[in-house]
Amino acid sequence: MNAENTIGFVAATLTTSAFLPQVLKICRSRSTKDISLPMLVTFILGVSLWLIYGLLLNANPIIIANVITLFLNLMILGFKLKYG
Amino acid sequence: MNAENTIGFVAATLTTSAFLPQVLKICRSRSTKDISLPMLVTFILGVSLWLIYGLLLNANPIIIANVITLFLNLMILGFKLKYG
Repeated sequence: MNAENTIGFVAATLTTSAFLPQVLKICRSRSTKDISLPMLVTFILGVSLWLIYGLLLNANPIIIANVITLFLNLMILGFKLKYG
Repeated sequence: MNAENTIGFVAATLTTSAFLPQVLKICRSRSTKDISLPMLVTFILGVSLWLIYGLLLNANPIIIANVITLFLNLMILGFKLKYG
């Protein structure tokens, strides 16, 4: 693996795993009051396009990162719609 | 501009501008209780590495997106440290 891909994969691991403590925090607190709904919707739309961009460029770090980021943010959006 | 770059720039605009409603929401509410601090720290570290990845690949959508995302998330982190 070249240097770019190594850095890309570490970046992907961090920006992806970042949303896990947010999911766990909401599971514990059942509160999403301070999280912006327009942020979640806009971010999810953007991450979906990053996924397409990664597929077009055949850039694995971008593809993998955005699949997992999309999944975790859809969970956070679900919590937001449930808890308000 | 080719199709990949167009999609990349729209994706960049969305995942970047997404954090603006979150910043504005905190400005109004002065509350960040539901936002995970470990998420913010991990995300900011990851975005910094995406920026380096973009620079190495000379991929403008990745560079521009991550500079602005970094700036807005450092603001959110500042609010989180201030409001708890």
